[in-house]
Amino acid sequence: MAKEKKLVEAITSMEEDFAQWYTDVVKKAELIAYSSIKGCMIIKPAGYAIWENIQREMDRRFKETGVENVYLPLFIPESLLQKEKDHVEGFAPEVAWVTHGGMSPLQERLCVRPTSETLFCDFYKDDIQSYRDLPRVYNQWCNVVRWEKETRPFLRSREFLWQEGHTAHATAEEAEERTVQMLNVYADFCEEVLAMPVIRGQKTEKEKFAGAKATYTIEALMHDGKALQSGTSHNFGDGFARAYDVTFTDKDNTLKYVHQTSWGSTTRLIGALIMVHGDDSGLVLPPRIAPVQLMVIPIRQDAEGVLDKANEVKDRLSKVCSVRIDDSEKSPGWKFSEQEMRGIPIRLELGPKDLEKNQCVLVRRDTREKMFVSLDEIETVVPELLETIQKDMFERAKAHRDAHIWDATDYETFKDTVENKPGFIRGMWCGDQACEDQIKEETGATSRCMPFHDQEQISDVCVCCGKPAKKLVYWGRAY
Amino acid sequence: MAKEKKLVEAITSMEEDFAQWYTDVVKKAELIAYSSIKGCMIIKPAGYAIWENIQREMDRRFKETGVENVYLPLFIPESLLQKEKDHVEGFAPEVAWVTHGGMSPLQERLCVRPTSETLFCDFYKDDIQSYRDLPRVYNQWCNVVRWEKETRPFLRSREFLWQEGHTAHATAEEAEERTVQMLNVYADFCEEVLAMPVIRGQKTEKEKFAGAKATYTIEALMHDGKALQSGTSHNFGDGFARAYDVTFTDKDNTLKYVHQTSWGSTTRLIGALIMVHGDDSGLVLPPRIAPVQLMVIPIRQDAEGVLDKANEVKDRLSKVCSVRIDDSEKSPGWKFSEQEMRGIPIRLELGPKDLEKNQCVLVRRDTREKMFVSLDEIETVVPELLETIQKDMFERAKAHRDAHIWDATDYETFKDTVENKPGFIRGMWCGDQACEDQIKEETGATSRCMPFHDQEQISDVCVCCGKPAKKLVYWGRAY
Repeated sequence: MAKEKKLVEAITSMEEDFAQWYTDVVKKAELIAYSSIKGCMIIKPAGYAIWENIQREMDRRFKETGVENVYLPLFIPESLLQKEKDHVEGFAPEVAWVTHGGMSPLQERLCVRPTSETLFCDFYKDDIQSYRDLPRVYNQWCNVVRWEKETRPFLRSREFLWQEGHTAHATAEEAEERTVQMLNVYADFCEEVLAMPVIRGQKTEKEKFAGAKATYTIEALMHDGKALQSGTSHNFGDGFARAYDVTFTDKDNTLKYVHQTSWGSTTRLIGALIMVHGDDSGLVLPPRIAPVQLMVIPIRQDAEGVLDKANEVKDRLSKVCSVRIDDSEKSPGWKFSEQEMRGIPIRLELGPKDLEKNQCVLVRRDTREKMFVSLDEIETVVPELLETIQKDMFERAKAHRDAHIWDATDYETFKDTVENKPGFIRGMWCGDQACEDQIKEETGATSRCMPFHDQEQISDVCVCCGKPAKKLVYWGRAY
Repeated sequence: MAKEKKLVEAITSMEEDFAQWYTDVVKKAELIAYSSIKGCMIIKPAGYAIWENIQREMDRRFKETGVENVYLPLFIPESLLQKEKDHVEGFAPEVAWVTHGGMSPLQERLCVRPTSETLFCDFYKDDIQSYRDLPRVYNQWCNVVRWEKETRPFLRSREFLWQEGHTAHATAEEAEERTVQMLNVYADFCEEVLAMPVIRGQKTEKEKFAGAKATYTIEALMHDGKALQSGTSHNFGDGFARAYDVTFTDKDNTLKYVHQTSWGSTTRLIGALIMVHGDDSGLVLPPRIAPVQLMVIPIRQDAEGVLDKANEVKDRLSKVCSVRIDDSEKSPGWKFSEQEMRGIPIRLELGPKDLEKNQCVLVRRDTREKMFVSLDEIETVVPELLETIQKDMFERAKAHRDAHIWDATDYETFKDTVENKPGFIRGMWCGDQACEDQIKEETGATSRCMPFHDQEQISDVCVCCGKPAKKLVYWGRAY
């Protein structure tokens, strides 16, 4: 009983301590366990099932655009990593090094991949000969390692799971097109499946990926008003191709460098889900990503006919959604708490009184709204309700996000906004990295992106230095 | 054109040099590429698509038995690895060691997981408290590293992909039941999906997994008469639980050790597929695992109506099978060679003369049998033909396997059989490891298993030492 009690204990409230609330939820919803390897987490069944759903749906969307999956090695020889100067500078400080194989020291150190641009270049160098071999649009689902100092479950860990796409193209235009296309795949996935609105835009020079010509990003707003980078897509131009000598013979019989892109999204999306939709009772999962969409909970299950009917209802619903029944010996109240903690979108309650009336009670996890539904209609009502919940969750998250976008046209307002109004801050920028550095140092906010779909000129001058402004930037404190 | 020519060049024949034939096929069917990390391979799209199909179907079968997926860390602290004596002795000589994270040496070396028993024990130690928490039936799909000296694509590489199941149970009986159950899941999968007959049995003490009480195995016979271990399932009893202190409070309120199992299968199954079914024209894939089941190849595709009709046929067939069309500018002959090299089960040819007769030509990859089929009937004929091919491939592999099982009741016959008759050798064994050692040293054959379904006493004495025999063993040279 001790174990059950723990689960229904009140978790820290979001208002009181958002960071602690997050930690409580990932543990009590049984998404993760801590391992004895510092900074590496264990993803438990309830967490991994969400990742499987993310993988399945994202992979389907990738393949619709012509992506093929491959698998490249875990290790990168030190000499290979070092060929692209910016890239190695960006990653070398945070990689894990393998120095021994079995009982013997290695002739050359191998780094555990933090990302695989170098390996894909090394592969493409031989794999691509002619324009007929292009484009290459490959992706892999795998683990990567970055030796972070501060770690948090899902958001930042020394090992994490992700997908990394790596493409090679004959022209710069095609590479740019693919970079934007994949950013849009991420954005659509987040909005349509995770019910999480995102800002699509470009990273500044300071914030772009090590070795990229341009980095595009989707930025989401968490419930506490901090931003979370939720997916990035990079255009490398021919920079890596030149460093790794990846060439092809074009139609005109001349040798050219390929143009490359890469794009990645990670298990951190699970962290985003938690922080966008969760509440003080735990996780709230959008129906399209929830491993279990409806939990049947019998009331007075010892009463005649209740358990039989509950099982019949479960079997019928299994044809239209992902459903489970909790017929354990816990009290209904405990079962409710568990179902709420796990974020299961709908609870179906069924007791002796409901049986008499040939009805059941449906309770929405997101709004706690209760409705009485005839048992004859559940196969139509439940799928519709799931769609309604999905839509409402997106609208609610979007309303919250939109209510937390602030404008600042002078530095005093900017500083005050960062301090007192959680959210994104729209502010003009001169294009000078010194201003980004100053803002970060003095306020903790970073440039999140230069948005694609919002290019309003809210002032003529940089919000930091007052010199002529070039670009509208979304700023914010971030995970 | 140079690239296309390479693909249709004759590969080495199986008879001439089976090892070279295998290498030619994995390369020319574009399953793998070699990487610049010695012993690590790159799995290309055609190879990875097979692995995705293996994963999808095996995972479905796992989940039907109650398996839940999780993810545990890539790294194992040296001290954790060392707690189970047999286990560390078995694996320490072949692990890769991480000694540095970023710029700093680690306080304790981390090994890159060669398998995860130790991590699961460390996890279960906290995760399991009461009999209510049992059984735990967890699995992970991941990469593992073993620092092998001799490597071959799919069969033995320093990094490979696999799944590893790890379970914990309240009783010894339940653990034994799960061990056998999962071996049967593997065996049924191999026979029903990969069309590959297997012998189910138990490993001897010498051949069992480091730290296991009992190891069960499925053994398949390759075309060259060598055996391939294709999946193993281990019963650990409470050995690991005692070493790692994994206990639970039972119903009677006493503290007990859990009983554990683990079971794994790997990308080596792709190697098995190649060596069981392949021929001198390349890969031959069973329909149920083939990423592409039918290739439409238009003949004289410039002739009026051919390409339109071929595309119409492709669209219609896409509702009943996995289909592609090759409308590239290569000659039909080249396209045939490529489709054969890639092992696509059915080729559909369609030319102007076929159009006139409202028919097409179907060619089976496995038998090269040609049949003329009315275009009105393709949606029924093709799925039936795929099922026929699947069944025939299994029967053919089984006939080949059964024709290569030999009996030996004395050592001279045994040695002669190993040398001159490729296949499994049935021979009685006294139970003494010295005989296994002697046989291995003198003939190169190892004990593959003590079969479950064949316990015939073919002689009273050990085939090696002549002392009283205890068990029938299947022996053979193996990959």
